[in-house]
Amino acid sequence: MFKASIYVNYKPSVLDPKAEAIKTALKRMDYDNVESVLFGKYFELVLAAKDEQAASAQVDHICDALLANVNMETYRFELTEISEVKA
Amino acid sequence: MFKASIYVNYKPSVLDPKAEAIKTALKRMDYDNVESVLFGKYFELVLAAKDEQAASAQVDHICDALLANVNMETYRFELTEISEVKA
Repeated sequence: MFKASIYVNYKPSVLDPKAEAIKTALKRMDYDNVESVLFGKYFELVLAAKDEQAASAQVDHICDALLANVNMETYRFELTEISEVKA
Repeated sequence: MFKASIYVNYKPSVLDPKAEAIKTALKRMDYDNVESVLFGKYFELVLAAKDEQAASAQVDHICDALLANVNMETYRFELTEISEVKA
């Protein structure tokens, strides 16, 4: 079993309106010391796979097909092997 | 300067419709080996603070007041000290 921690963010060239809204709100709250804000999505998938290579290929495909809009977003992920969850 | 990596998730007791939608879509794509899906938000803030304790207190307050709905969501964050970004 593998746990995939997946981060999906807008590409740097794409303006992120949510991050801009957070920046504006922080200014209004007098947090002038915040230099930059990045806003993204975070997924954790637990999946069964025979080895890390197979898990990596599957997570890559799931990200491309479902979790990220590859036109505007980039993703990265980390895989951790975990022991079987007891039923 | 500190970089805060912030994770905001629904509390386990709250049904997450987006995570459910992803599970359904994965089944439709024949990914029957995916056991669980967690969907959350990820933020990266870069902020100036005199020490880690001050940064931690500020990030805590920003999460409570702005980034997380504490009725339904939980958050956790990690702080990393980074060198000044050259202008």
